[in-house]
Amino acid sequence: MRLAVVTGNPHKAEEMAAFLEGTVEVEHVPLDCPEYRDDEVGPIAREKARFAYETLCRPLIVDDTGFFVSALRGFPGPYAAYVLRTLGNEGMLRLLEGAADRSAFFVTAVAYADADGIRLFEGRLDGEITTAPRGSEGFGYDPIFAVGDRTLAELPLAEKNRFSHRARALSAFRDWFPAKSDGDNR
Amino acid sequence: MRLAVVTGNPHKAEEMAAFLEGTVEVEHVPLDCPEYRDDEVGPIAREKARFAYETLCRPLIVDDTGFFVSALRGFPGPYAAYVLRTLGNEGMLRLLEGAADRSAFFVTAVAYADADGIRLFEGRLDGEITTAPRGSEGFGYDPIFAVGDRTLAELPLAEKNRFSHRARALSAFRDWFPAKSDGDNR
Repeated sequence: MRLAVVTGNPHKAEEMAAFLEGTVEVEHVPLDCPEYRDDEVGPIAREKARFAYETLCRPLIVDDTGFFVSALRGFPGPYAAYVLRTLGNEGMLRLLEGAADRSAFFVTAVAYADADGIRLFEGRLDGEITTAPRGSEGFGYDPIFAVGDRTLAELPLAEKNRFSHRARALSAFRDWFPAKSDGDNR
Repeated sequence: MRLAVVTGNPHKAEEMAAFLEGTVEVEHVPLDCPEYRDDEVGPIAREKARFAYETLCRPLIVDDTGFFVSALRGFPGPYAAYVLRTLGNEGMLRLLEGAADRSAFFVTAVAYADADGIRLFEGRLDGEITTAPRGSEGFGYDPIFAVGDRTLAELPLAEKNRFSHRARALSAFRDWFPAKSDGDNR
């Protein structure tokens, strides 16, 4: 079988293909899925997977990522991409001016769908919001999100990809998937 | 016929019933519709109406409201309720500290669905974000949104309901609806 990676983002598809090399052959399918509104990423990924499976009728994975800042009651949560586009990192730093608690975390939910139904795998990465952007690697919130001493934008991409929220979710999927495939004699 | 007002919010249903009195008899149906993510409220209301009509198979209206702040590239847009719950008016004022352009607007989209399909009616209300909350009427962003000299929270609800974004969308629907009903001999 070839596993469909359903996303509009070719870079994400490449990253997933690299991660799953040796486990399963993947194929990028740029299907546009409607996204539901929910405060958590698990149900969003699940609904995307349901829609994609109804459309494609083949084994597939989709993902959804959120960014949750404790001092902002979880904001921007699943709307991380929209908030980056409108407020940007500058807006996030402004909202956190003077905040004592700067803890935040990313969560990626990977949803796998096949004829048996949908299964979710989540990965989480905890860190702190910096007081100013640092570094030029990565994208999105990476320059203001530090794990230990360094922001994600100060890490080489290959290093970030070893422990990121998405890597952790994909790892959980990868650990489970061969067992399932063996059981199915695929 | 009785028009179904599909919303989880009984106050909204009451407000709509009062507004449409004399035009059509309405019935509150508290169906929970999944909400799609979109940067505009029209498509969100349309998808809610589509889902509700597939479920109920009777003429109905749903609505969706967004709040768009120019200096924040339209933020919070259709995520107005989520942002109010997390950042609140305090967060909005902080994001706008020192902003020269404080213009903002509300948009409500009302979607009507029947066997002929879906029709959208939009109402918009322009104003300015204040530098501090004022007034105790209304709810949500009302204390920081001024139309002319007064915030919406400084206006009696009955007065606000005469020119609000929701009133304007419902007016447009009301103006169209009797003509349609006459044509159908209902």
